[in-house]
Amino acid sequence: MTPFDIHRAAAAVRRLYENRVIAQTNDQVVRMSVMTGPFHWHRHPNSDETFLTLEGAVVVDFADRSVTLGTGQIMTIPAGVVHRTRPEGARSVNITVERGDMETEAVDPQPDFSPPAG
Amino acid sequence: MTPFDIHRAAAAVRRLYENRVIAQTNDQVVRMSVMTGPFHWHRHPNSDETFLTLEGAVVVDFADRSVTLGTGQIMTIPAGVVHRTRPEGARSVNITVERGDMETEAVDPQPDFSPPAG
Repeated sequence: MTPFDIHRAAAAVRRLYENRVIAQTNDQVVRMSVMTGPFHWHRHPNSDETFLTLEGAVVVDFADRSVTLGTGQIMTIPAGVVHRTRPEGARSVNITVERGDMETEAVDPQPDFSPPAG
Repeated sequence: MTPFDIHRAAAAVRRLYENRVIAQTNDQVVRMSVMTGPFHWHRHPNSDETFLTLEGAVVVDFADRSVTLGTGQIMTIPAGVVHRTRPEGARSVNITVERGDMETEAVDPQPDFSPPAG
């Protein structure tokens, strides 16, 4: 049992997108996600996905609306719900909690979505 | 789906100890824990418990050693392992991930534990 330092690990990320398991809780995993741009539209048919923002802010786009998570905010996306994530600014660091065997299905065609102005 | 603001909720806590569910991920829950003093020795026979420190630092005492989690550090305590948590300073805010039906067994007699000096 050794602590894993998320802020330190995130600071070392040089890739535009990084997502990896940093803890395991029973059959669920906690992942660190470092993002600098939008992810593709997708859904997880067999797992809820809980987001907690640790640095910056992340926008979660749904087909009909967007929700912004600021630092220290948490929200769960229920299994099956189509969504997309993107940093609000240049970069955001988040953790997610989800099943270790979570499946991801790309959604195509993409939802008819227009990001809110500003 | 509405974001829950952990820092804001923690700032409003006036009790010496608060622990409540703030998100559910499949059959697991995410709890917010606000602590100002040591918890009793215990173990969770049926669930791992993952701690992530969001404010301050928390010391996790085991029977034979202590581990300190600073802000942004994460660690999992495997099911069955006897432990106790306490803030390093006056107050610490953490989240935990664990089974929604996690059981807690108090440990008595307590481990023969002497906190490290300083």
